[in-house]
Amino acid sequence: MTLAEKAAQLGSVNADLLLDDDGELDRETAEDLLSEGMGHLTRIGGEGGLSPTDAARVTNELQDVLAETRLGVPAIPHEECLSGYMGPEGTTFPQSIGMASTWDPDLMAEVTATVRSEMEAIGTRHALSPVLDVARDLRWGRVEETFGEDPYLVAAMASGYVSGLQGDSVEEGISATLKHFAAHGATEGGRNRTSVNLGRRELRETHLFPYEAVIATQDAESVMNAYHDIDGVPCASSEWLLTDVLRGEFGFDGTVVSDYYSIDFLREEHGVTDSDRESGVAALEAGIDVELPATDCYGEHLVEAVEAGELAEATLDEAVRRVLRTKFEKGVVDEPTVDADAAADAFHTDAATDLTERAARESIVLLKNDDDLLPLDAGLDSVAVVGPKADDGPEMMGDYAYAAHYPEQEVATNATTPLDAVEARADADGFDVTHEDGCTTTGPSTEGFDAAADAAADADVALAFVGARSAVDLSERDVDDADNPTLPTSGEGSDVTDLRLPGVQQDLVERLHETGTPLVVVVVSGKPHAIEWVAETVPAVLQAWLPGEEGGTAVADVLFGDYNPAGHLPVSFARSVGQLPVHYSRRPNSATKDYVSTESSPLFPFGHGLSYTDFEYDDFDCSSSRLHPSGSVTASVTVTNVGDRAGTDVVQLYARAESPDQARPVQELTGFQRVSLDAGESARVSFQVDATQLAYHDQAMDLTVHEGPYELRVGHSAADVAASASVEVTDTKAVPRTGRTYFAETSVEPQ
Amino acid sequence: MTLAEKAAQLGSVNADLLLDDDGELDRETAEDLLSEGMGHLTRIGGEGGLSPTDAARVTNELQDVLAETRLGVPAIPHEECLSGYMGPEGTTFPQSIGMASTWDPDLMAEVTATVRSEMEAIGTRHALSPVLDVARDLRWGRVEETFGEDPYLVAAMASGYVSGLQGDSVEEGISATLKHFAAHGATEGGRNRTSVNLGRRELRETHLFPYEAVIATQDAESVMNAYHDIDGVPCASSEWLLTDVLRGEFGFDGTVVSDYYSIDFLREEHGVTDSDRESGVAALEAGIDVELPATDCYGEHLVEAVEAGELAEATLDEAVRRVLRTKFEKGVVDEPTVDADAAADAFHTDAATDLTERAARESIVLLKNDDDLLPLDAGLDSVAVVGPKADDGPEMMGDYAYAAHYPEQEVATNATTPLDAVEARADADGFDVTHEDGCTTTGPSTEGFDAAADAAADADVALAFVGARSAVDLSERDVDDADNPTLPTSGEGSDVTDLRLPGVQQDLVERLHETGTPLVVVVVSGKPHAIEWVAETVPAVLQAWLPGEEGGTAVADVLFGDYNPAGHLPVSFARSVGQLPVHYSRRPNSATKDYVSTESSPLFPFGHGLSYTDFEYDDFDCSSSRLHPSGSVTASVTVTNVGDRAGTDVVQLYARAESPDQARPVQELTGFQRVSLDAGESARVSFQVDATQLAYHDQAMDLTVHEGPYELRVGHSAADVAASASVEVTDTKAVPRTGRTYFAETSVEPQ
Repeated sequence: MTLAEKAAQLGSVNADLLLDDDGELDRETAEDLLSEGMGHLTRIGGEGGLSPTDAARVTNELQDVLAETRLGVPAIPHEECLSGYMGPEGTTFPQSIGMASTWDPDLMAEVTATVRSEMEAIGTRHALSPVLDVARDLRWGRVEETFGEDPYLVAAMASGYVSGLQGDSVEEGISATLKHFAAHGATEGGRNRTSVNLGRRELRETHLFPYEAVIATQDAESVMNAYHDIDGVPCASSEWLLTDVLRGEFGFDGTVVSDYYSIDFLREEHGVTDSDRESGVAALEAGIDVELPATDCYGEHLVEAVEAGELAEATLDEAVRRVLRTKFEKGVVDEPTVDADAAADAFHTDAATDLTERAARESIVLLKNDDDLLPLDAGLDSVAVVGPKADDGPEMMGDYAYAAHYPEQEVATNATTPLDAVEARADADGFDVTHEDGCTTTGPSTEGFDAAADAAADADVALAFVGARSAVDLSERDVDDADNPTLPTSGEGSDVTDLRLPGVQQDLVERLHETGTPLVVVVVSGKPHAIEWVAETVPAVLQAWLPGEEGGTAVADVLFGDYNPAGHLPVSFARSVGQLPVHYSRRPNSATKDYVSTESSPLFPFGHGLSYTDFEYDDFDCSSSRLHPSGSVTASVTVTNVGDRAGTDVVQLYARAESPDQARPVQELTGFQRVSLDAGESARVSFQVDATQLAYHDQAMDLTVHEGPYELRVGHSAADVAASASVEVTDTKAVPRTGRTYFAETSVEPQ
Repeated sequence: MTLAEKAAQLGSVNADLLLDDDGELDRETAEDLLSEGMGHLTRIGGEGGLSPTDAARVTNELQDVLAETRLGVPAIPHEECLSGYMGPEGTTFPQSIGMASTWDPDLMAEVTATVRSEMEAIGTRHALSPVLDVARDLRWGRVEETFGEDPYLVAAMASGYVSGLQGDSVEEGISATLKHFAAHGATEGGRNRTSVNLGRRELRETHLFPYEAVIATQDAESVMNAYHDIDGVPCASSEWLLTDVLRGEFGFDGTVVSDYYSIDFLREEHGVTDSDRESGVAALEAGIDVELPATDCYGEHLVEAVEAGELAEATLDEAVRRVLRTKFEKGVVDEPTVDADAAADAFHTDAATDLTERAARESIVLLKNDDDLLPLDAGLDSVAVVGPKADDGPEMMGDYAYAAHYPEQEVATNATTPLDAVEARADADGFDVTHEDGCTTTGPSTEGFDAAADAAADADVALAFVGARSAVDLSERDVDDADNPTLPTSGEGSDVTDLRLPGVQQDLVERLHETGTPLVVVVVSGKPHAIEWVAETVPAVLQAWLPGEEGGTAVADVLFGDYNPAGHLPVSFARSVGQLPVHYSRRPNSATKDYVSTESSPLFPFGHGLSYTDFEYDDFDCSSSRLHPSGSVTASVTVTNVGDRAGTDVVQLYARAESPDQARPVQELTGFQRVSLDAGESARVSFQVDATQLAYHDQAMDLTVHEGPYELRVGHSAADVAASASVEVTDTKAVPRTGRTYFAETSVEPQ
């Protein structure tokens, strides 16, 4: 291979450079751009806005162009798929924060297996998901893209994600990309791409843990660097992070791809290089194999750097070898094209629609339900559906969902809104529905309040759908436009200084409450809002997150009792933005200090979620009171559905070091298990906890299982611990990074 | 020495254990408690609430008791003196954040020389100040105790503080205690004593820099550990911090004392030990020589630990040696007692009163002055003085000021309030004064608004004194009491989730503004408030901080033009609590990212401060465009007072690495100089910048001067840069920790 051919394997090309205004391939340009080969193809379907058939056809054409180059090596087409394939006709599932609320990694895998089947049909072989960032600042717009605040839950859900997406074999699967490596969920001020300042213990135990766990257990095929710097060193140029830790310690052997334009940002944003060539060399030497989305700093810059003696050709070769190996292993070389005529058949199957509804159902969290207001009475005569989130398809979706991200495309969302679903039910059940928006998500106008209040006053029950709008192409918005009625306040780049419901939505809820009509608030939003007044005043509150295209149906299923809610919070709710951070796993000195007039506890704790039935925990015990540092112990509890209807519980196991040599978190999630029980039914749920799960970094920063007493706790949430048991680790022992156990093995035995 | 005698030298005893209800020494108890000797005596005058004469007398009696022990070694009496001696009759100076606004380390030294003379008179030999914490979270109640957000300014002001307090010789001076080691200004959530999570580069360059600089330049005699943990390791048990870095790298050779009860907190708060003995051993081994304020975990616990083989006697000996050496060096052994009859003469001298007024004047920052509303017209007929901060002595003072901290003592504050000062001037100048509180600082009542608005409407000008109450004994307050009219919202343990003016004070200002009477807002508070509406709407705004006992006079001096304000902000003002952090020295990627509807810039930038005249900068240049890593360069600028009255400017020099190998702050303060100029007068101000001032930690965390271009900038504030010049560092060179240059040498030449 020539130097140019090698460098070409480390680059990618944007769809918009290859397609004309009609979405047709500009073959001449393609032949020119791909003349030396190409590593990746960037979002042909998604950025190109092509139908599945066209996406497959154009991808095939591009692979044909590559087949005619000297080496004939095809490219890896990649796409985004955070909550489903991000392109026209992709089935949209709940946003990640909602998926995390299911505490159901198996469901997550089912979802991504479905996503895989859609993307495979158009020739995609690599996907830029999942997000493993641990959300520690709720101001951040990308909280919705995460699996929440806890490294264990993030790791578990991401494992499910990768498992489904990559499938059972390298050949059949789509490479998953763990991102954003690392600690993107803890940026300064909760603003996107700003500096991360963390100690190495916090960095490793909170933010790197999910990567280590998913790499070790799922053989994830790709990792993407993060935009920011950590303590001054940009992730994109951090050899320590991308090579020493990722490959050396975690044993990662796949390809590292750059977050879009993050190599350019070494110069443009961080100021650590003076030219694109320097940026390219710094990134490649640090460990980024492939530059995305376009070839700005790699390509000819790397060729020149080698020729100028500024870059060792061996460094280039190593990255090229990784890319080529992937192309062979994944069968891209053997079968570069797909059957374009069949592509559309894979999209939006009935099974996919059923699955997204099921996922949405499981993701909904019942935060409060005083006097069993929910489920709604079957004999209702009238329902008022109010609020700006009641009837807008894109409003149900998160960032990186095609319809939400590119609203100007006005594509079919295939969405069932809450209003659609309630009206469908009304037709069947014979009650009246009135509908008023009342206000917009962010606009200042209260003109619609009277009509909304009148509708509520005349109804048996009022359902208020409030929340925030996510996503939207950033170029479309004006941050200074305070009167913008639907300003996005969530999604990438939409970070906020206030966690209250945007605009006048709380005022609307207060107005509805004053009518005296029983009121249910459904928050449709990608992040926890500071809803203290709502939580204290309104009898029933649901957090529906951004539930995807069948979210309306799912919400109605919960409201009317066809589904018994089982979602649990993957993130703590702050009382106000000034209370951040509020994650449950703070250290003892941090967890207990109150502010003037604000206590330190969150409004709703991590793990919280109500059901229409009740679960009791009995007979919690451990198989042994002593635990060898190479051994394991089994903690078991009997769970009983003591209510009068079937339901699903999420049993949560927390661990705490009782006598550590350093300040440890007050407790850390160490296992969880969903269990579905009929009324009156019991099951024995067991968690096999490996001693290495209790390891932490000693003062020399060596990962070690420490001798001493530990407490295992079973709880309904981080703040509602039902029982605890002690176990004594009998010795101190260093733990190797590879080969340790990350997840408790669980079992459920009906009683 | 016996083990018990050794251990006794590492302890202290609280005043309240030694004094009866009448403040008289309980001699029998004292003889018992001091039988083996004693390291320190804890706040005999201050905690005892004794008059200077009694404080001196009781201290003498205690030293007499010690003289009769077997070894006859006297104790070191220590006191608090953040803004002046914290005991009855102590002269109260502006709180630290106000002193930092003077940008006048020489004035700081004059202040602490005066504080020294008061404390020396009662026998104090050790003071628990200054605070070197770099304030990076404005929610923190102790922001007022700091010298602000910038490590260079903190180091410079703290150097002045130590210089004045320690005096010209070890024998005459009072030991200064640098606290809280380290990084107490960056705790999680801005709550006191919570975890600190920082990378080591940020830790060293921002939070350790002031310690290194003050130890190197002032030979500070004591350091106090911080309460919190850093990345999990409590400072009180961190050998890395207290020994490896402090003594090994920084060359500190004085005594390390514990923050009050922080050794107890190893067990009680951090959970890292199981007994007081373990806590004592952990702290002593880490490097804490003396336990304060009482002997809880040292004393007999250390004796038992040595006897049990859990602690090496040599470790004990080393700490004892440090304490005894200090007692000899400081002359405590030679002259343990003072002339009690003369003690009172040292307090509240005329010179001290003049100095506190001068300090208060210099501390006031003119934030805004549209249409030259200030200084007020000499021909005024009437002035309305409004607001809850207008006429309350303790309200002028900060935490650790005796009158503010112990309001129940109802001691004479010797304070001149703003109302006092305006009324005195009214008597002299012949205008009318009306006064209405309007509201309290934190109470919800608006009952006083009408009267306040009437007073304003009837006056030529309205002066609104608003802000926050600081300090108060924590046991006196109920954080849940939302209706508390004067809840402290600043000071130790009074951390807040909201930066707006507390209570209904902004509503009061809005009401006053509606009257149409020209309005001046004076904020009397220990922290920057989120006063965006005030800043945009009210024509003239002063930040008076907590100006101490002559604060009222100083404010009136500024308002009426007898003093031309020259204070500059030592800390950036946030637009809202959700915007934190807003310090000016963020990295490029952090400094520029906006939130939805909130830009990233602060409301008022670091270094901002207006004058009644204007200053222009011309002919900024460097003595050379090349700088050897062992050399220095001189940057000079001509400053001209282009207005029509005399004034004082603070010329600020900032540096920026233009091509670093890591993301560096957008700029960093590297020098400053106050310069007083008559109308029309010019001066040439020069800064000799040593190359080692440009050093930073490379990727291997070695402190290094890096080859490459740097920009030096001269500015009126961090956001108002007038000119810049380039200088090229010619080589890369490692910098030793000891012997490097910390401060630019400056000179002022009249032109």
